[in-house]
Amino acid sequence: MSVTAAAGFRAAGIAAGIKKSGNADLALVVNEGPRNEAAGVFTRNKVKAAPVLWSRQVLTTGALRVVVLNSGGANACTGPEGFQTAHATAEKAAEVLGCGAVEVAVCSTGLIGEQLPRPALLAGVEKAAGALAGTPEAGDAVAGAIMTTDTVPKQAAVTDPAGWTVGGTTKGAGMIAPSMATMLSVLTTDAVVSRPVLDAALREAVKYSFDRLDVDGSMSTNDTVLVLSSGASGVEADPAVFTAALTRVCRDLAEQMQADAEGVSKRITVRVTGAASEDDAVTVARTIARDALVKTAMFGSDPNWGRVAAAAGYADAELDPERLDVTINGVLLCKGAVVAGDRADCDLSGRDVLIEVELGLSGGAEGHVAEIRTTDLSHAYVEENSAYSS
Amino acid sequence: MSVTAAAGFRAAGIAAGIKKSGNADLALVVNEGPRNEAAGVFTRNKVKAAPVLWSRQVLTTGALRVVVLNSGGANACTGPEGFQTAHATAEKAAEVLGCGAVEVAVCSTGLIGEQLPRPALLAGVEKAAGALAGTPEAGDAVAGAIMTTDTVPKQAAVTDPAGWTVGGTTKGAGMIAPSMATMLSVLTTDAVVSRPVLDAALREAVKYSFDRLDVDGSMSTNDTVLVLSSGASGVEADPAVFTAALTRVCRDLAEQMQADAEGVSKRITVRVTGAASEDDAVTVARTIARDALVKTAMFGSDPNWGRVAAAAGYADAELDPERLDVTINGVLLCKGAVVAGDRADCDLSGRDVLIEVELGLSGGAEGHVAEIRTTDLSHAYVEENSAYSS
Repeated sequence: MSVTAAAGFRAAGIAAGIKKSGNADLALVVNEGPRNEAAGVFTRNKVKAAPVLWSRQVLTTGALRVVVLNSGGANACTGPEGFQTAHATAEKAAEVLGCGAVEVAVCSTGLIGEQLPRPALLAGVEKAAGALAGTPEAGDAVAGAIMTTDTVPKQAAVTDPAGWTVGGTTKGAGMIAPSMATMLSVLTTDAVVSRPVLDAALREAVKYSFDRLDVDGSMSTNDTVLVLSSGASGVEADPAVFTAALTRVCRDLAEQMQADAEGVSKRITVRVTGAASEDDAVTVARTIARDALVKTAMFGSDPNWGRVAAAAGYADAELDPERLDVTINGVLLCKGAVVAGDRADCDLSGRDVLIEVELGLSGGAEGHVAEIRTTDLSHAYVEENSAYSS
Repeated sequence: MSVTAAAGFRAAGIAAGIKKSGNADLALVVNEGPRNEAAGVFTRNKVKAAPVLWSRQVLTTGALRVVVLNSGGANACTGPEGFQTAHATAEKAAEVLGCGAVEVAVCSTGLIGEQLPRPALLAGVEKAAGALAGTPEAGDAVAGAIMTTDTVPKQAAVTDPAGWTVGGTTKGAGMIAPSMATMLSVLTTDAVVSRPVLDAALREAVKYSFDRLDVDGSMSTNDTVLVLSSGASGVEADPAVFTAALTRVCRDLAEQMQADAEGVSKRITVRVTGAASEDDAVTVARTIARDALVKTAMFGSDPNWGRVAAAAGYADAELDPERLDVTINGVLLCKGAVVAGDRADCDLSGRDVLIEVELGLSGGAEGHVAEIRTTDLSHAYVEENSAYSS
C-alpha cells in the first residue's frame, strides 16, 4: 500500500532521537533498480529549506537512488550550517548504501529555524540502512516516521493490469501543518518510464491533487514531492495510463491529508463551474476556500452563502454577478447573486460540505471547472497553531 | 469629535426597528452648505450591494446633500427589489429634506442576502429628519446607529489653525466584520475645497489608513467611505494641508477599528522596510498580516519568526533570502533568513506586537517602506464568526 508496493524498493523507518518524544523520526527509501529515473516538485517559496536546496540540485540529473526523510525539524532558515547538515546526511547515506551523494535526496519537516542534531541524524541513517526491507511493514514504517501532527499515516497504491504499480506515502495537510512544517511525499513505481514522461506525469498529478488542496493558503519552505522509478516490473507503461495512475495515488493521498488536517471538523469541497478559463475556476475556488469568514461559517454549520458570494466577488477572476449561483449541499441558495432558497433547508450537520459556484461564463464540453479541497476554521485549528514552537 | 465637528452639518441617529434588538440602526448626515462638494471610495468587490450601486451612481455628479446610513442589513445580493429599496430611501430623504434624490447617498451594513424592511426604513428616515441637530450629541448618535458587532463607537476630528475642521465616524473593522458586513465611514469638513482636491485627498487618505488595515483579507460587498464638504468655514484649505488632516482623521479611525476588531487580543503592526518598491512593501506586509499561522502564533504569544519568514517568502514580491531580517518587538530573531536571536528574549505578553521585516533591497531616503495593521486569530474570532446568520 505504500513506497514498497512497487517492486525494486526497500525502505525503513526508525527512531533516531531527533524528536524529543522518542517517536519514529527518520526514514529511508532505496531504489534497487534496475533503473533510477526520478522527478521532483518543490515549494515555490523564495525562502527554501536546506534539504530543498540540496534535493533540487541533485535532481537536475533526473536520477535518484535514495531518499532520506526526517521529521522533528525542518532544517529551514538554518544557513550554511543547515545546508552542511543536509549534505552530510546525503554523504552518510551514500557511504552506507554504496552510491554517490548526488544520488541521494533529503527531505525534512518540523519547526523552522532550529539546527537538526547532526550526530543523531547521521547515526539514524546508519541504523535505518540496517533495517531496510521490501515488505509492506517497511512501507508502513516510512509513513510513520515522517508524521508530525498527523494523527494517522497516509499511504496509497494502484496496480495496473499491465503489471506495474505506483505507490506512495505523504505527511501533513498541505500548508496547514504547524510552522509550515509542510507536506512531504515520496512515490515509487516499478513501471519502465523515461525521465521526461516521469517528470511530466508528476507535474500533472501534483497539479490535480496536492495543488488542489488548500487548507490555509500558506506555502511552506519545505514542500517536496518525489517520484522514483525502479523499472523492476520490466513493463513499459503507456504515458497517459501512467499519468492517470500517478494522479489517482496523489489524489488519494491528498484526500487523506484533508481528512487529517489540523483542527478539521468539516471536509469542504469548493467546486467552481462555468468559469471563463480553468485558471479563473481555480482562482475563484481557491479564494473561497481560503476565506476566513467562509471557513468559520462552515465550522458553525451555518450556510452563510453571502460570504461565499462575496469571496467569489473579490477573487481576481472574470465574474458577472447576474450569472452567479451558489449551491451548498445541494440547496440552491443564491441565483444571479440574489437570495434564492431558504437557508433552513440546507443541512450542514455532517462532516462533508460541497459548495458549488456556477459562474455562467462557459458551459457544456467547453466549460471550465475546478475543485479545491479545504477544511473549516475551528477552535482546534487555533489551539494547535497558537502554541507550537514554545 | 465627529460628523458634526465641522460647521455646516446636522445629523441624527435613531432606532428605526430594523435591528431586532431595538438598538439604534438608522442615521442621517445632512450638509447644510453653502457648498456641497463630495467624494467617495467604494468596495472593489465585483458583487456590490444595492446601496453601493446607488451611491456610486449619484456621486458621479461630485455633489451630495445627504447620507442615509443603516445597520441591521447589508442590502447586498437582494436584486432589483433591494435596489428599489435603496432608491426609495434616497427619494424619501430627498422629499423630507427638500433636495433631489440624486443628492442623497445610501450606506447599509449587516447580513448579506436579506431584504431590508422598507416601511420601517422609510419611516425611520422621516423620524431621523425630525431629530437633526448640529450638536456633538447628534454626531455621537450617528456613530452609535451604524455599529454592528462594534463594541464602541468610533469618531475622530482635526481642526486646522487656519480655521477649518475635518471630522468623521466609522464602523466595522476593515473586512473582518461578520458576513462582510463591512466598513462604512462618513467624513465631513467645513473647509472650502474643490471637487478634484476633495477626491484626490480622499483617495490618498484612504490609501494610507483604511487600505492599510487588513484583518482577514476579505473584501466586503458594502465598503463605503464618503467625504462631504460644506465650505461653512469660508476658509480655502491648502490641498496638501487638507490631505494631511484628512489622512490623520482616517488613520485615527482605522486604529480604532483595529483595536475593536472581532476577537482581537493583539494589535499587530507589520512594518516592511527595504523593499524593491512601495507596492512590494505593501504586498509583503499584507501577506504576513493575512497568514493564519502568523496570526495564531501571535494569539499564543509565540515569537514564531519562521512563520513570518515563510510568509514573506511566498509573497508575490522581490525577495533575497540572504538579506531577509525579522525583528519582533525589538528582538532580532532572524538575520539573512538564518536564526539569530533567542526566542526566549522576545516578550509578546502585551497587547501590541511590532513585526519588522527588512528586505535589504532599498534603503535610506530611497527606501521603500509600508505598514499594515492587523489582529491575531483567536478563539473569540472563530466564535463570533461561526454563528452569525443563523
